[in-house]
Amino acid sequence: MHRLAIHTITTKSWDLPTAAAKYRAAGVRGIGVWRQWLEGRSLNESRRILDDHGLSAVSLVRGGFFPYLSAQERQSAIDDNLRALDEAAAIGAPQVVLVCGAKPELPLSESRKHIEEGLAACLDHGRATGVRLSIEPLHPMYADCRSAINTLGQTNDLLDRLGSPPEIGIAADVYHLWWDPNLEAEIQRAGKRIIGFHVCDWLTPTADFLNDRGLMGEGCIDIKGIRRQVEATGFNGWIEVEIFSHRWWSHDPDEYLRRIVRAFEAHVEFP
Amino acid sequence: MHRLAIHTITTKSWDLPTAAAKYRAAGVRGIGVWRQWLEGRSLNESRRILDDHGLSAVSLVRGGFFPYLSAQERQSAIDDNLRALDEAAAIGAPQVVLVCGAKPELPLSESRKHIEEGLAACLDHGRATGVRLSIEPLHPMYADCRSAINTLGQTNDLLDRLGSPPEIGIAADVYHLWWDPNLEAEIQRAGKRIIGFHVCDWLTPTADFLNDRGLMGEGCIDIKGIRRQVEATGFNGWIEVEIFSHRWWSHDPDEYLRRIVRAFEAHVEFP
Repeated sequence: MHRLAIHTITTKSWDLPTAAAKYRAAGVRGIGVWRQWLEGRSLNESRRILDDHGLSAVSLVRGGFFPYLSAQERQSAIDDNLRALDEAAAIGAPQVVLVCGAKPELPLSESRKHIEEGLAACLDHGRATGVRLSIEPLHPMYADCRSAINTLGQTNDLLDRLGSPPEIGIAADVYHLWWDPNLEAEIQRAGKRIIGFHVCDWLTPTADFLNDRGLMGEGCIDIKGIRRQVEATGFNGWIEVEIFSHRWWSHDPDEYLRRIVRAFEAHVEFP
Repeated sequence: MHRLAIHTITTKSWDLPTAAAKYRAAGVRGIGVWRQWLEGRSLNESRRILDDHGLSAVSLVRGGFFPYLSAQERQSAIDDNLRALDEAAAIGAPQVVLVCGAKPELPLSESRKHIEEGLAACLDHGRATGVRLSIEPLHPMYADCRSAINTLGQTNDLLDRLGSPPEIGIAADVYHLWWDPNLEAEIQRAGKRIIGFHVCDWLTPTADFLNDRGLMGEGCIDIKGIRRQVEATGFNGWIEVEIFSHRWWSHDPDEYLRRIVRAFEAHVEFP
């Protein structure tokens, strides 16, 4: 339980003060903050809300979306990532999770080139802020318009090419990676690069490309098995519950939070 | 055009005699026959329908679904694949396309073991019938319940482990493979193993996990680019149009067939 963190998008109906109070009351100590939850108040005030509830900001979600169709788009993507690093630093989050982006209008190879350029353009500011960029490889079903980075192996190759900069790590989400026949080998290869671990579950059938993820234990992902592999790299950080679900969002949120805690205990924690 | 084949599922509302007559009238010479289209008449009669219209049976679709929860399921899967080989031989189709199967109740590693066992159990009958088994790696979004074989690299590894039996080839479908950062290298590695090439397109957004594929040119897949890579292996066989689409199925089928031919000319054929 001391490693359980929840992303604010998971309990979508709660604003930051409500989520902070509810998480704390449930014994949850970590929070993954989506940037929409920072709107409408100063960063200092958001930080105070977290501090007042004894919550650690585990990650700021999300940066990325580097591919562009114009020079202006290119620059605004980079600016937005630099801003995200500032925001993360302000609320005490050690990493910005990156959904790297993809444009259906571009060849995949071009989107991938834009991502490498974009990452490189953020390294200095990452170093300056002390916040790491965390690449989240996304499931191949998102390769058209969300991320052209789709496997852990590809992420490892990319980081090799960039010279393994310490400013960049990897967020490993079981939802995106569970199917990969090379997963175990690539987790070993990633090693200390893995700085984030996200959990949820894959439902059969899945009704919606985006918003039909399952609570841990509802689906077919071997979450404990993947966790074991990730922790064999030395990872002992937060375990972040990130669930997009129309079904759960329409549930009573207090009851849902209790279910999240129970699912974490039953399907993520080791006996 | 002389290499264009169409899968009967693509023009779902037409039975085999209708599809055969319509394809022929449109100048299409190859047909991928889904097994449901063989029901209700003898195999000889089905073959006669194809022959009468000068159509080649390019593939029989589909076998596979090897993973099992009981010994009985195991045997009935193997029996079904042996039957598929017989059916293919009877209608003159040189290959049975395999959707290898997966069970959400099983660990992926177990589904994969069942697939290897199942393939091995079909080799003798493949040799006897002269029909090849054609593994179609399926998109990772189908890893829960349709196929635990999800990349071309994994398929190559599997065939390496089985000792590259000549009875087994690969059906490369752009819909399943387009996103893969290792695609070109794995196509080269597959080489002569590639005995089937399927085309359609990936829509943004995709509304349905199964039945929202695009006509070639409607989506973001670089079909000609992948075709070029596949043909660099020496492949010069049929190019099979396989589209599951509620949208297109609700269209006038004659107009749809004209659109398929035009899309093939514009987005698959080289100038």
